[in-house]
Amino acid sequence: MRETLDFLLFDWLKAADLTARERFAEHSTETFAAVLDTCERIARDKFAPFNRLADTQEPHFDGERVHLPQATHDATLAYAESGMLAAAQDYEFGGMQLPCVMEMAGNAFFSKASVAMGGYAMLTSGNASLLMAHGTPLQREVFAKNEFAGRWFGTMCLSEPQAGSSLSDVATRAELEDEADALGPRYRLTGHKMWISGGEHEITENIVHLVLAKVPGPDGKPIPGTKGISLFICPKWLVNECAELTGERNDIVLAGLNHKLGYRGTTNCLLNLGEKGQGAVGYLVGKVGDGLRCMFHMMNEARIGVGLGAVMLGYAGYEASLDYAKQRPQGRPMTAAGKDSASPQRPIIEHADVRRMLLAQKSYVEGGLALELYCARLVDELHTGDNAAEAQAVLDVLIPIAKSWPSEWCLEANSLAIQVLGGYGYTRDFPVEQYWRDQRLNMIHEGTHGIQALDLLGRKVVQQGGASLAALAARIQQTIEHAIQTDWAPQANQLAAALAQVGGATKKAWSTGEPEEALANAVPYMQAFGHTVLAWLWLDVALSVDGTSDFAQGKRAAARYFFAYELPKIGAWLDVVARREPLCRDIKAEYF
Amino acid sequence: MRETLDFLLFDWLKAADLTARERFAEHSTETFAAVLDTCERIARDKFAPFNRLADTQEPHFDGERVHLPQATHDATLAYAESGMLAAAQDYEFGGMQLPCVMEMAGNAFFSKASVAMGGYAMLTSGNASLLMAHGTPLQREVFAKNEFAGRWFGTMCLSEPQAGSSLSDVATRAELEDEADALGPRYRLTGHKMWISGGEHEITENIVHLVLAKVPGPDGKPIPGTKGISLFICPKWLVNECAELTGERNDIVLAGLNHKLGYRGTTNCLLNLGEKGQGAVGYLVGKVGDGLRCMFHMMNEARIGVGLGAVMLGYAGYEASLDYAKQRPQGRPMTAAGKDSASPQRPIIEHADVRRMLLAQKSYVEGGLALELYCARLVDELHTGDNAAEAQAVLDVLIPIAKSWPSEWCLEANSLAIQVLGGYGYTRDFPVEQYWRDQRLNMIHEGTHGIQALDLLGRKVVQQGGASLAALAARIQQTIEHAIQTDWAPQANQLAAALAQVGGATKKAWSTGEPEEALANAVPYMQAFGHTVLAWLWLDVALSVDGTSDFAQGKRAAARYFFAYELPKIGAWLDVVARREPLCRDIKAEYF
Repeated sequence: MRETLDFLLFDWLKAADLTARERFAEHSTETFAAVLDTCERIARDKFAPFNRLADTQEPHFDGERVHLPQATHDATLAYAESGMLAAAQDYEFGGMQLPCVMEMAGNAFFSKASVAMGGYAMLTSGNASLLMAHGTPLQREVFAKNEFAGRWFGTMCLSEPQAGSSLSDVATRAELEDEADALGPRYRLTGHKMWISGGEHEITENIVHLVLAKVPGPDGKPIPGTKGISLFICPKWLVNECAELTGERNDIVLAGLNHKLGYRGTTNCLLNLGEKGQGAVGYLVGKVGDGLRCMFHMMNEARIGVGLGAVMLGYAGYEASLDYAKQRPQGRPMTAAGKDSASPQRPIIEHADVRRMLLAQKSYVEGGLALELYCARLVDELHTGDNAAEAQAVLDVLIPIAKSWPSEWCLEANSLAIQVLGGYGYTRDFPVEQYWRDQRLNMIHEGTHGIQALDLLGRKVVQQGGASLAALAARIQQTIEHAIQTDWAPQANQLAAALAQVGGATKKAWSTGEPEEALANAVPYMQAFGHTVLAWLWLDVALSVDGTSDFAQGKRAAARYFFAYELPKIGAWLDVVARREPLCRDIKAEYF
Repeated sequence: MRETLDFLLFDWLKAADLTARERFAEHSTETFAAVLDTCERIARDKFAPFNRLADTQEPHFDGERVHLPQATHDATLAYAESGMLAAAQDYEFGGMQLPCVMEMAGNAFFSKASVAMGGYAMLTSGNASLLMAHGTPLQREVFAKNEFAGRWFGTMCLSEPQAGSSLSDVATRAELEDEADALGPRYRLTGHKMWISGGEHEITENIVHLVLAKVPGPDGKPIPGTKGISLFICPKWLVNECAELTGERNDIVLAGLNHKLGYRGTTNCLLNLGEKGQGAVGYLVGKVGDGLRCMFHMMNEARIGVGLGAVMLGYAGYEASLDYAKQRPQGRPMTAAGKDSASPQRPIIEHADVRRMLLAQKSYVEGGLALELYCARLVDELHTGDNAAEAQAVLDVLIPIAKSWPSEWCLEANSLAIQVLGGYGYTRDFPVEQYWRDQRLNMIHEGTHGIQALDLLGRKVVQQGGASLAALAARIQQTIEHAIQTDWAPQANQLAAALAQVGGATKKAWSTGEPEEALANAVPYMQAFGHTVLAWLWLDVALSVDGTSDFAQGKRAAARYFFAYELPKIGAWLDVVARREPLCRDIKAEYF
């Protein structure tokens, strides 16, 4: 995987060019490589060997404390010590000023080694970054800084038992207590927060919860919709302005741990706020009613992070099944004369169908990695590049794909990995079944598949009169124009046709202007869109490899596979979109 | 599900007509219904409530004995007492002389309630049926009869650690000890048997293992290939001619339990034969070298059984997610004017994308049920019908689909069920995650997906000059001709085109006569073939519903869904088949 990662970063995405920018001027190819080396080493030594343990020794609550394996403590603290929590932050704040693409690349190793053990750090980094963007100087100093240092970990508290995807129904209530608290306007919060990853543990001495809640309007009732949502810092243990624990426990109580199918190494909690009386102490971040905007400020990075996690689970399964396929003897070639059963069995990688399953995985996971790194590179363009507007437009359209595509297709990769191992893959003696279980979360959290599809077809491709979609199409067109001059002309033509088909379906979906008609087939649309994007990236990657090394041939084979076996799937998906197929919209509930 | 089952059996497949045949003359619609009632009741009372328990209280071995939950004992013995173990057997042998289609329909309830707890009985029934076909009168009397009575349970011992899909590499060795034993020629067996479901437990006082092994040739070496394989009865405890336990333990030792991703309620074992010295006692069934033919005599029923198990897991998930979708409020309609966030949330079944996920599930699980019952009905035609040859031909082609299609698409159904439940679906508080885990086995056991595809494209569709495929095509054509006269004409035309496309791809795949070229894309071929078969069955089912009841409209909606969203997928699969896409065949192992 390292070779592919290096190739994508340095040959394909020209990550080294970033060092010419002022913010990254102190970096070099060497410092970038050193970061990857460090991450690779810690992930190999501290995470990967304990991934199964974190699954089997699921977090448990003894009524007072939540217990995690010691390995989880050790691994997350080793991560914190590496400085990666603050990788993208300013030097003056203890950061490394790494480009987003390098931060993501470094984190890829941890997601591959143990996505669940890596969860605590990812949440903490995202939480603290959000405070850097929206917190007061003292909130940054007290909370963000201690999170970056790994002294405290963080969470994101959005969902509630009655409000998962529908955040406008958040019912947690925040009442003002003291406008003038140095840590920010102090409120008292009452409510229930569900699906809180990292919501309770004793890895760190404190946990910094970022909580969405509603401040009542003048009539004393919560303001309907998302406009009424504000954001609060609710530390598990109260702290003073010097970031010292006061010794007083905030009124945030663990109501229960969720027992999950996978991802078991990360605690996932139902938290009760204000159960004991006055309400949990929370300090307002940003303005009242601005909570969702603040929370979603980091959404691009969060969704790239989830997508990358999905990709790396797929990658882990791919490598495990490839390794098995090279070593496991089984069966013999079938020829027109039958099989020679007296000959020795051959490794299963010699069977075309096993190679098909490996090639599919390769195309999904390496293509997915290209997608996530490409998006991370766009984040860098957004922050330090020459044409931020263009980068923003392309990124806007790609984000729902970056989140959704690997969660669906790297799940398929994980299933194929099980299939390659056969009965052994179905046992817990091999890691592939856990990857598959862990992976299944990714279509659900951080915005479900359905939500991503609404974001794509309902907002992103139509925003500013379709300008964002046009910006992406222009980039795809560039690749096509380049490819058409090469041996890849057939694929270039195929991609051009796919792009036209996506564009046509987008128009037809919206031709009546009725959201319910356009969006009834948003998921098939997103599937087709995603496959088109991946075909484009594979073509672009294929154009950038040189020579006839095994590595180069492998990349070309995966690209060809994607065009031969995958891209043709879009027709079936787009047909229903283009004709605004009303079946699912119209069927009555009683017919089921 | 009962309403759909009754409809498919009695309205669509005219199961009651079978009572006109001599073998089923004592049956009636009432006796058939009584069987279904009994199965439904036992499954509901004894199986379903303990399905999660059988998963969490996984079988464990204390070094001497294997422990299972008491519920598993109770459930399997209740099944045995119902008489279903011998459902299809002659009255004189204690059976019910039920048609295959009714036996399968009854067993569907158990697969839905707990596929893993039901495993012991399915294996026992298959084992004993095999002995009825190939055993001596005394073998039937001693072994089969006691299995049908539920006194002893049975297993099938095919795989070995080094020989999973490749049975020609079976290395278990059988040496003749006494040609003249009353229970059959007595051999001593030495070897290892892997993946043996039901291989050890104490539900019954004895276990009857059916074991594949090789008798050495004149040179003392095992005969290469499958021709050298023979079949043996190896009881866990030795018995005499009166079916009494002698008290002597046979030399079959549990080497270990496999710890699986799902299907945990069924023990799965590595067994060592002859570990202690002389070898395990085994009585030859049939002739030396005829083992595989004997073992596969019941293969059609076994594969329909696996397919039906896959369907019923899908069905269980569909019902759970449908129930949830009707009750769970979340979100509001999106209109051109936006959302009214002050209005109450609506049940998620009101969202088009949730309905899409439910409709997809419905089309997979009800279509799958139609497929399995159709195949079982063909088994009845084969045994008691007027045109056994035609039934055999159609059944031959359908069997790989009956095994493979639900294992792939009802897995997708189970994944969609999780998605409908969102975060809750990912927890172990709801049953859908277990269904998904249990289901994943079905693409692996009883012949992997790849093996089914080779059977279909490598043998079934080309056998007798394509006569079997032609027989199936003739039946499909009949449905098309009927449908073309109705509102279903567009679907009829779509199906005709699909059938032509499958036929064309079959020819092109074999146009060079090279198996390696034809079979490199056998799995995509099978996927397209399966979807075409399911489209046909859905069209046929849709034609057979009357009126405008919710039930009838639901069937029509599912049929329309399949034609709108599913059948168009075949193009992408068949393209690679038709052009004998060489990518997977040609790629070198080093390129990965």
